[in-house]
Formats: sequence, structure tokens, C-alpha cells
Amino acid sequence: MKRLITGLVVLLLIISGSLCLAQTDESTVKEDFKPASTNQPGREYPQVNSEGRVRASISAPEAQRVQLDISAVKYDLIKDSSGVWTGDSEPQDEGFHYYQLWIDGAAVPDPGSLYFFGAMRWGSGIEIPAHDQDFYALKNIPHGQTRAIFFPSKSTNTSRRAFVYTPPDYDKDQAKRYPVLYLQHGWGENEYGWPNQGKTNLIMDNLIAEGKAKPFIIVMTYGMTNEVKMGGLRNFDIKPFQTVLVDELIPYIDANYRTISNQPHRAMAGLSMGGFETRLITLENLDTFSHIGLFSGGSISPDDVKNTPGFKDKVKLVFVSYGSREIENMKNRPRRGPFGGDPKENIDALSKEGINTHFYVSPNTAHEWQSWRRSLHEFAPLLFKD
Amino acid sequence: MKRLITGLVVLLLIISGSLCLAQTDESTVKEDFKPASTNQPGREYPQVNSEGRVRASISAPEAQRVQLDISAVKYDLIKDSSGVWTGDSEPQDEGFHYYQLWIDGAAVPDPGSLYFFGAMRWGSGIEIPAHDQDFYALKNIPHGQTRAIFFPSKSTNTSRRAFVYTPPDYDKDQAKRYPVLYLQHGWGENEYGWPNQGKTNLIMDNLIAEGKAKPFIIVMTYGMTNEVKMGGLRNFDIKPFQTVLVDELIPYIDANYRTISNQPHRAMAGLSMGGFETRLITLENLDTFSHIGLFSGGSISPDDVKNTPGFKDKVKLVFVSYGSREIENMKNRPRRGPFGGDPKENIDALSKEGINTHFYVSPNTAHEWQSWRRSLHEFAPLLFKD
Repeated sequence: MKRLITGLVVLLLIISGSLCLAQTDESTVKEDFKPASTNQPGREYPQVNSEGRVRASISAPEAQRVQLDISAVKYDLIKDSSGVWTGDSEPQDEGFHYYQLWIDGAAVPDPGSLYFFGAMRWGSGIEIPAHDQDFYALKNIPHGQTRAIFFPSKSTNTSRRAFVYTPPDYDKDQAKRYPVLYLQHGWGENEYGWPNQGKTNLIMDNLIAEGKAKPFIIVMTYGMTNEVKMGGLRNFDIKPFQTVLVDELIPYIDANYRTISNQPHRAMAGLSMGGFETRLITLENLDTFSHIGLFSGGSISPDDVKNTPGFKDKVKLVFVSYGSREIENMKNRPRRGPFGGDPKENIDALSKEGINTHFYVSPNTAHEWQSWRRSLHEFAPLLFKD
Repeated sequence: MKRLITGLVVLLLIISGSLCLAQTDESTVKEDFKPASTNQPGREYPQVNSEGRVRASISAPEAQRVQLDISAVKYDLIKDSSGVWTGDSEPQDEGFHYYQLWIDGAAVPDPGSLYFFGAMRWGSGIEIPAHDQDFYALKNIPHGQTRAIFFPSKSTNTSRRAFVYTPPDYDKDQAKRYPVLYLQHGWGENEYGWPNQGKTNLIMDNLIAEGKAKPFIIVMTYGMTNEVKMGGLRNFDIKPFQTVLVDELIPYIDANYRTISNQPHRAMAGLSMGGFETRLITLENLDTFSHIGLFSGGSISPDDVKNTPGFKDKVKLVFVSYGSREIENMKNRPRRGPFGGDPKENIDALSKEGINTHFYVSPNTAHEWQSWRRSLHEFAPLLFKD
């Protein structure tokens, strides 16, 4: 447990970056801004240009100061004669980013954007068009369903929500049964992360339509069963969630969906904290899970393999991925080192021992959703290859 | 079409009420405030007291003026020495209300609340505990699923989203088939309204568990197929949505779900604009629908019956409901009169003609979600009684 906490703290330090104030030099800005795809219906702002800059705009005629706060930098907006404040950020990485506005010292969501849960809150998010966005585009192909369900949980004495992705043909052939991937969000996020900003359904619909992934079920539930408060990480304990997942959710899914309910056809993956959870839970439950995916969430070392009886026989895939900027950060902070050892070195060592591994680096992205969408897109085709 | 538009305009006038500024006399306020059930996880504000007052609070140290804007009234908040602004509203009707904050002239969502789509935007909403809230409480009983699906729509050349509620046993008995209710949101709302603030799944789960309603499928999709802009109502035309619903969505649902795909087992209902849509679409498609529900959305007159061949044979139920405050408003504005004639008089007249009708008034509520939750709760048990 101590290693988990140390790892999470290191990770948060890596994520947080430096906080500063900024104002963009407007003379260099490309004037090809368009409303973001993550805007509320009909809203003109925020906008994004071809450099990946975000232009925010809000009417606040009596305000003294309005700022756009994105990727840990605050950009001053400028007021025009009608009381509308507007301003641009520096270019952002392609993909999805959380952000907010500051109005005279109040941190608020941008009324122009759709809202997403991250950083322990529902707040604004913005999509910077990515060169590879086609893999999660909504296309005119057969679509699966994302089902909101409640499952009974004795250990927490609640009905708990999960989202269940069923592939396009699930309702057609009532005789067919499917493997299952249990897919976890990160710290400060919840079960809406993968279905919403994660684009899980569209990634899978597209992969299945192209014949690149086998159809399987994906189950996404809330992985922070402890008290949900900022700083609650210090009290984080894997046991309550392991009980919910392994003893309650999996039996419920197997009883209520046409699953292939055995170890070879069950996978677990997660991003960031969800990766740590995946590592801890799968290593303790190798009779339950055969495929393991850690997205920006540590790795599995030769020591882990040594200390886990039966690992080599039972584990069919160890997939580890990071954003390239995360890898760069690890190299620049050798004294801290990544959680559980250098992930590439670990994976190479496991590979030499004959374990089926896959290491993926998302180009030009950091600890953010574009890395994780791409990770799912790389991971899914490797699953359940009988 | 002209009557539809006139009706909608009258309705909007009734809804809008009077806009004014206010500040609550704090000496009379009961100090038993608790965080609202609609708050974001772990957030202390907004709060609600036993009188139904809303207490908003936000840190805005540099702001000059902060207001809580709810039920068309703006309440000034007061700043404390730490820069936190706090203030209360007058007592609100029980049930769900949209609201927002104003910070130095900027209208923004409250970062403490969950967000709901209404008034053409995702924004803050708050639940005032109702005396009858048990009928939409989350209980430890079998739960149905709310499925997010995409269906192909040639007429709009898009993949369109719908939510499909399937009752608790839907996945158990693969031989059983179910009736279907098509359920529409109001103007300025979207397909998230009924599943989120409408509590459709919980209302149905509870009714089914108590044996009060037959299990049936509910389909909820977006009913404003025209351009989504404020003021777009003037250009509202029922034809595009009727095409999506009748020619595209219904065949898709019948092909992909175990429906009883005939007129006696198909109902349509809607709230406000969704009621107008229901009235127009069902009257033109009586070979498709047998049960009609209009919630705060007009009524069906003896003239309608006369002008619609086969009405008496084909229609199994005409359900009309309003909030009691809407009825009071109609009485106070006799010159304008309600859309399509006095709803109670119309329903009584239909009843005398031998048509199966039901008129329901939600006590002490207006043109708001508590009226519509209660309407669904009254309507569902009357459906598909073979």
C-alpha cells in the first residue's frame, strides 16, 4: 500500500506541472478559430484554431478580471466595449483537456462548454482536434450500446452505477457469449470518464466495424469507493473496491449478460489510478483475469512476476502505455523515478521471460485522455485472441 | 401549425412569470439547511432548508456583485471577510429547478451543482425534497437499464442518439416481448431530460417492483430536429421530427428490441412542447399509436376527435395533466385561454363520448419537472391494460 501511495504522489507531481500566469501575444495567433466540438449546442465559444489554441469568451460587463485556466496556466482575457471578455491560450496538445474560467476570483465552468467529470468535479472540457481523431469519430456503421445499470453491493450497502458497453450485434444472436473487459478511470474521475471523454463506445464500434478487434463487453464503474474528497488519496485502500469489483460486480455481470465467464475471457485495465488498481487487483486475482492493461499507471516488474505464483501460466497479456511527454518527464526526473520501476525496462524484461507484452507510447501527449483513448485503441485488438 | 405556434407562445408567457430582484429577510429563515441531493460529490453548497429555500455560496473575493438566479428571481448574495458570497432564495416549489449564478454580470453555472440540460443549455439544477419523493427514490430492488444508443436517420443524414429504458427482467426471458412508450422532452430540453431530471428509470423500476405498472420499454430521443437556437421556435415544424420518429426510430426499435410491434402496444407522450408534438403526431398516426399522454402540453378537443377518422376505435387512452399552478394561471388569464381549449373541459367532453380519458393535476407545482415526474407516475399504470 505504501508503494501505491508513493507512486500516486509522484504521479500527481508529474501531472501538476508549473502554475503561472500568461497572456498570449496576439500578433502571432492564426485567425482560423472554430467552435469546439465539445461546445454546448449552438454556442460560438470556446473556439480552437489550427495551432491548438483555445479562445474563450464570456460576457461579464461588471468584472475586473477574467481568466482562462487550462493545462495549469491562467490566461488573462481582455474586455471589449460591450463587456465581453475574450482571450487565447498557448497551443494545447491535441485531444481532450479540462479547463475553467476565473471571474473576479471565482472559479467557474465556462457556460459555453459541455461538462465532464475530472479533477473531482463536473466542469468544462475542450477537444483540440487530433490528427488521428478518425478512430473515435461517430460514423454511419453499426453501433453498440452504453447501458447505465445499477448493481447491488452488499459491502457498501448501496445500489452502485456502472456503464456497460455491449457490442453492435449483442442483441441479435441470443446464443452468442462475449468476453469482458473491466475498465477503470483515474483519480478524481468517475465512471462517466470512459463513456464520455474516453469515447469508449466509438473506439470499439469503429474497431469492430473494421474487423480489428473481437466484439467484447466493457464494464466501467466507480473506482474510488472511499470518501470522495480532495486529499482523500492518502486514505486510499484497494480492498473496498476489490470487493465491489471482484465479489459483487463480476458475479452480477456474469449473471445478467451473456458473458464467457472464465479467466481466459476476462480482462482488466485502467488509466492512472485505475492502472494502479488494475495492477493490485489482477496480481491478487489471477484466477479471475488473464489480460492486464496499465495506461499511464505503472507497470509490472520481474519481481512482481516472481512474487505472484502462476503468473506466467495465467497471464495472457501485459499491456503498458504512456504518453510520450510522461516518458520525457520520467527521464528528466531520474531521482524520483517512475512508480514500480522504468516501465519500458520492466516490459522488456517480462518479454524476455516469455510473457506476452505490449508497450505503447502515445506521441506528443501527456497524462491526458488522448493518451488513454489511443491506449484503448491499441489494447483492444490484442484482447481475447484465442 | 399556426395553432401550435400560438399555443407555444402562450405557454412560454405563462412559464416566464415576472422577473425581479430580491433579497431574503434572513431573520425569518429556518437554519436547517443541508447540501442538495443534486450537488456534485462532496460539495457543501448549494443547500436547501425545510422551507424549500436555496442557499447558494461561492468564493469570489474580487467580485462586486454575486446573485443567485432561480425561478426567474435574482437574489443578492452577501460577501464575508474571506471573500465568500452567500445568500438564500425564497421558498421554492418541491421538486427540480434549473438555476444559475451571476458574478459581476456573467451568468455561469454554480460549480457546486450537477448539470442538467434545460432552457437550451447545460446548467445548474437543484432538487427541493418533495413530500412524495419516495416514488422516484433509488431503492434496493431490481433495476432496469437506460441504454444510450445511436440509430441511423436517413432524413437528417446523421446517427441520432436515443435513450432506451428496458425494464428489470428484459435480459432474463428472451422469449418475452414488450410494449413501447415514446416519451418526449420539452422545448429547450433534450433527450437527457427524462433519463436525468425526469428520473424515468427510477419511477418505472419502483412502479414495476410494486406491481403497479406493466413492464414496458421507454424510448427517449431529441425532439427538436430543426436548428437548435434560441428563438428557433418560430421555425418549428413537426414534419422533420415526425419523419425521424415514425419512419426511422420506430422501425429501428422494433428491429433491435423485443417489442410488441403493433398499434395497441405503442404509446406516445411528452411534456410541454413534447405534448404538442405528441398531439400532432398521434392524431396523424393513429394506426401507429393507441395511448396518448400530454403533460402540460395542451389537450385533445371534441373537434380533434371529430376531425380524426377512427379516433374512437383506435385510441385506448387520452391522458392530460398539468401542474396546479398552471391551471391557476389559465384561470387568471381567461382572455388568452389555454392552447386547444380548456383541458379539463375537453377531457370531460371526450369522456362523455365514451373515450377512455384520465385528467391529472399535480398539486402545488407549476410548469416544471415535479409535475412531469408525477404525470409519468400516474400515466404508466394506465398503459397497455389488455
